[in-house]
Amino acid sequence: MFKATISDTRSWRNSIEAIAALIDEGTLQIEKDGLKLRAMDPSQIALVDLELPASAFDKYEVEEPTSIGIDFSELSKITKRSRAEDKIELSLEENRLKMVFMGETNRRFNLGIIESTSSPPREPSVDFTSEIKIGANILKEALKDAELISNHVAILANDGFSITAQGDTGSAEIKFPAENIMGLSVKEKSRSVFALDQLNNLLKASDQTSIIILKLKTDAPLRLEYAIGDGRVVYYLAPRIEST
Amino acid sequence: MFKATISDTRSWRNSIEAIAALIDEGTLQIEKDGLKLRAMDPSQIALVDLELPASAFDKYEVEEPTSIGIDFSELSKITKRSRAEDKIELSLEENRLKMVFMGETNRRFNLGIIESTSSPPREPSVDFTSEIKIGANILKEALKDAELISNHVAILANDGFSITAQGDTGSAEIKFPAENIMGLSVKEKSRSVFALDQLNNLLKASDQTSIIILKLKTDAPLRLEYAIGDGRVVYYLAPRIEST
Amino acid sequence: MFKATISDTRSWRNSIEAIAALIDEGTLQIEKDGLKLRAMDPSQIALVDLELPASAFDKYEVEEPTSIGIDFSELSKITKRSRAEDKIELSLEENRLKMVFMGETNRRFNLGIIESTSSPPREPSVDFTSEIKIGANILKEALKDAELISNHVAILANDGFSITAQGDTGSAEIKFPAENIMGLSVKEKSRSVFALDQLNNLLKASDQTSIIILKLKTDAPLRLEYAIGDGRVVYYLAPRIEST
Repeated sequence: MFKATISDTRSWRNSIEAIAALIDEGTLQIEKDGLKLRAMDPSQIALVDLELPASAFDKYEVEEPTSIGIDFSELSKITKRSRAEDKIELSLEENRLKMVFMGETNRRFNLGIIESTSSPPREPSVDFTSEIKIGANILKEALKDAELISNHVAILANDGFSITAQGDTGSAEIKFPAENIMGLSVKEKSRSVFALDQLNNLLKASDQTSIIILKLKTDAPLRLEYAIGDGRVVYYLAPRIEST
Repeated sequence: MFKATISDTRSWRNSIEAIAALIDEGTLQIEKDGLKLRAMDPSQIALVDLELPASAFDKYEVEEPTSIGIDFSELSKITKRSRAEDKIELSLEENRLKMVFMGETNRRFNLGIIESTSSPPREPSVDFTSEIKIGANILKEALKDAELISNHVAILANDGFSITAQGDTGSAEIKFPAENIMGLSVKEKSRSVFALDQLNNLLKASDQTSIIILKLKTDAPLRLEYAIGDGRVVYYLAPRIEST
Repeated sequence: MFKATISDTRSWRNSIEAIAALIDEGTLQIEKDGLKLRAMDPSQIALVDLELPASAFDKYEVEEPTSIGIDFSELSKITKRSRAEDKIELSLEENRLKMVFMGETNRRFNLGIIESTSSPPREPSVDFTSEIKIGANILKEALKDAELISNHVAILANDGFSITAQGDTGSAEIKFPAENIMGLSVKEKSRSVFALDQLNNLLKASDQTSIIILKLKTDAPLRLEYAIGDGRVVYYLAPRIEST
């Protein structure tokens, strides 16, 4: 038995979006203390770890923890149709995830549960050498700049934080002034190269007010985290090996 | 001889759009009391019946009633270029429909009259068993919800009014609360299935303030009507036969 | 040595856009009194002549006049990423054009200089017979009207100024009332036909407030000029020969 109600539809939408940005199908764990999902993207380059605690919901009841296979691309399309003023009721019934959007009209969506055998991957253990806190917006803008030049970027933390791109016709370097960084702690110079489209995916569920926490180590996976309402999402992204 | 002037350019645009949503070419009847058009769409699934009375015009002069063949897809492109502040002069000259948009600039468009031999189809006679009045907006939103699930929807009037969609991966049911329906009269339960893209076409010329009148009978054509300024459009849409 | 700083980023963007609208690659002349470019488009139908004087810049230093080959389609993408509040620093370093956008972040772009052997074409000498001054907006709207009918238009100056289009299905004539023309001087009736997409290109870098100066002569190239901040762009466009 699982029943939950949520009024913060934006967090619900963003949580689903955070998953759908990376994977089509995945296993949602319905635990006593909240919803969880950890999965690798099909290319095995990125990992998403989402937690939406029971406290994010107005009502949250789970009798027995369970895991259900979800087509997140379908679920994402449905949740995008919710409006800010809707209240959403979730429940599990006869192998279907039932959602009722209660607003101007009452809209009932049923989504079939799919089979899912995969067990959640382990969280990578990396001894990060630097950490950056920065607004989602300023980071997204920098990635748009870099996009003009190349489809991958180097992220560098040293005495400052910067993003660089190197292309056939030119190059770009975006330096974030200290006053625009919310936190920078560097044990040693850290620099890795990542695919731009993947980085953009990781930021999809963030909004104007999101604060992004980045952890870096040279040529190691990036850890990228931000809050979604009461919950939070953590991503790991494998670095691109530079050919020299 | 036909000469007319209209200041309510929005009604003129919407009237043309109401026709162009369904047919490319058709026969416009220029009568003493107004403009009329009744035609089937090429697939013979839908019928449009439009009336724009003489009263919708500032000036309306017809010496002899006549019928002209019009390429409504071309006419629609031209009328879309009119602006709210324009006054539109219409006239028939040497086998051309002449339109002058008088505003900041004076824009004169001539559209060739095309041959047209089709006579208007008869209006279907259906003994409808229920009638619903509802805002265009709320109806359009429900169709967008249903679109996520399937490309056809069931419209049902019984003790309430609802729209349902059934797809491979899930289902949706949109219930309209009594306070959001402007009128509901049901002689007997009525339920039919229609193609979503066709339903969307029928609503193309409606706007925020349009009130839609739906008439239903189980497995019979739907009748859908709304006002366009002083005029009105009526559509009939054949139901989809459900395979069971 | 070339170093310049500009705060009027809109003029800089529009200047680059004015060139990129016509040519992909071209030779920018860096003179003591400002930047200049004169080039034909690849189809040899249009010529662009741009001048951005030193006065448009906050700082402008040139030791030795020089010419550099620029990929304007790349440069245009980069300059479009500048924001109104940015200050742009330009310099020439080791065969690269260096641009720094100083704003919320500091963004450094380097664009490789390309080889360029072409020398600037001569400005055509035409004994124009009429001149029209008109707002960019009203002209663009008229071209949009004409676009419905044909892909080329006749521009006519006589006792008034008008644009006409003739298509298979109809025709359009846009007359500009005297009060909407800022200047009209006609020595003799002038009428030429031009490709619409080319005309649209010439207006790309104009904005709401731009005043367009057109010079016409029957079946001769059109001269089209407007200011871009402290600078100005002049285009010549060859007429289309009408088949009769």
